[in-house]
Amino acid sequence: MAVYTEVSDEELEAFIGEYEIGQLVSFKGIAEGVENSNYLIQTNIDTYILTLYEKRVDPKNLPFFLGYMDHLASQNIACPTPISGRDGEALRSLCGRPAAIISFLKGMWPRRIHPEHCAELGEAMARLHLAGEAFPLSLPNVLSVAGWRSLFEQCRDQADSVIDGLEDILESEISHLEAAWPEGLPTGIIHADLFPDNVFFLGNKLSGLIDFYFACNDFFAYDLAICLNAWCFEADGSFNVTKAKLMLSRYRKVRPFTDDELSALPLLARGAATRFLLTRLYDWLNTPPDAMVKRKDPREYLHKLRFHQQVGGPGAYGLS
Amino acid sequence: MAVYTEVSDEELEAFIGEYEIGQLVSFKGIAEGVENSNYLIQTNIDTYILTLYEKRVDPKNLPFFLGYMDHLASQNIACPTPISGRDGEALRSLCGRPAAIISFLKGMWPRRIHPEHCAELGEAMARLHLAGEAFPLSLPNVLSVAGWRSLFEQCRDQADSVIDGLEDILESEISHLEAAWPEGLPTGIIHADLFPDNVFFLGNKLSGLIDFYFACNDFFAYDLAICLNAWCFEADGSFNVTKAKLMLSRYRKVRPFTDDELSALPLLARGAATRFLLTRLYDWLNTPPDAMVKRKDPREYLHKLRFHQQVGGPGAYGLS
Repeated sequence: MAVYTEVSDEELEAFIGEYEIGQLVSFKGIAEGVENSNYLIQTNIDTYILTLYEKRVDPKNLPFFLGYMDHLASQNIACPTPISGRDGEALRSLCGRPAAIISFLKGMWPRRIHPEHCAELGEAMARLHLAGEAFPLSLPNVLSVAGWRSLFEQCRDQADSVIDGLEDILESEISHLEAAWPEGLPTGIIHADLFPDNVFFLGNKLSGLIDFYFACNDFFAYDLAICLNAWCFEADGSFNVTKAKLMLSRYRKVRPFTDDELSALPLLARGAATRFLLTRLYDWLNTPPDAMVKRKDPREYLHKLRFHQQVGGPGAYGLS
Repeated sequence: MAVYTEVSDEELEAFIGEYEIGQLVSFKGIAEGVENSNYLIQTNIDTYILTLYEKRVDPKNLPFFLGYMDHLASQNIACPTPISGRDGEALRSLCGRPAAIISFLKGMWPRRIHPEHCAELGEAMARLHLAGEAFPLSLPNVLSVAGWRSLFEQCRDQADSVIDGLEDILESEISHLEAAWPEGLPTGIIHADLFPDNVFFLGNKLSGLIDFYFACNDFFAYDLAICLNAWCFEADGSFNVTKAKLMLSRYRKVRPFTDDELSALPLLARGAATRFLLTRLYDWLNTPPDAMVKRKDPREYLHKLRFHQQVGGPGAYGLS
């Protein structure tokens, strides 16, 4: 639930006046996302999203994110597009924060995942990966294997207060991942946060992807590993191999895997589970009780990690 | 920030299917209001608000609230109108809660109050009061003087933990209000919660009133007393008599006051300040730390109460 910054009338009016988007007729905070403040804006011309970037987003990376969204739109990927002001600039400032107006994307994120959603996601992800290849900027993934130990060090002392034995589990898992992490897999810009609430559908058809503020350069297969975690487990904790198989097989119709990518998938999936286990643990320990954000339970990702630890090979994800 | 109930795709689709409002193209939780879950719905035809009534609203009063909104719209008061399903019913059920779709009202609530906002509010409130006269249902105000003592009893033991000396202040104030509360003032349906976030403007022109879920039968002048508290104090605590005068004088051009109403205003304003002091105190003590609602500071209303206690007569509000 995210509206961290209240925008005053005068500031809003002056800000909107810098664009050619018509007269404001409605302005409502959106109760979605946890990183930034998002407002739905209606004018007499169209509907838009106003985002104020809060402290989790490093302002120096915003030209990368907005440029990437612009690039994707030019490659016919359905996603929100930054709107430029009269001076040609999309990245502006409002209430002392970096801010941008982006186009409104139709669709709803699925509250309940059906296999067909996963198939659609696989295809869209492959198209996203290919479309990013011509984008000239790059940004390293600070939340990949090289960043996990320092995140762990910041919360290891309190880890067992959240889940008994978690410190040892993470110590041993991170050591394993650091030693075994693959090199040389196909790399490009990945979304890195393709959770269901960032993927919009109209009926069973994917209508677009949103929220590119974790996008970075990393292995393409790591994006798949994140989605195996985020889309293919049921609420009861069971792994739905049909969903995984549909996602992966629709992906590789558009962008075929190398053998190395395929065999690395179980390890990458362990890495992705560890990444979200770590950030959830960190947030669990560091979210003040009066924050207007619901903390997400780290246990969910420990359970997913344990699943991937016992996987024998990519066949467990429905691939032969 | 209010979205307490997550609506699943299947439930939403089935619910929308009961109306003739077109195909759903967007569905977003709104981060406003604290009582109910509100979603902005866009279809290929229009924009709507979906409200799920949470536990603070007594379901047995919903026919009153929705009927009143319908009645107001028929009297050309700008306000959201309940939309009926194919079966003619506006009050339905979704996710186990009473739910309704209401029309979308253009405009934005003012983050900073200008005197002209207060003038517009005065006129709209008077028109609202007159428009309610032909509405056949009635509902007593459970949050007026007769209800304050029981609210106080539920939190008096902890009152001093919030503000030193508050228990004594409230005990003495409630006793005074109970003894001095007027009788026989002009009565009808009042909004009873006309805070700035429930009054929409386009530019400086009032575009409509929303959120009628505290509406009830009470003294018309009590609605004015609530608004003196909610609209006429500056952020630094000072009382802006220009705003009060504009609100009251524009009101009485549409619905003239009786002398009794005028002289009762200071006492009614004390009562209104006490009502919000009590409910804020109650919420302060009873909001769980992980609730996704920002608690409002009771101190603000103690300060306002103290202002009205020292008022000599209605002249303090700019009236002669």
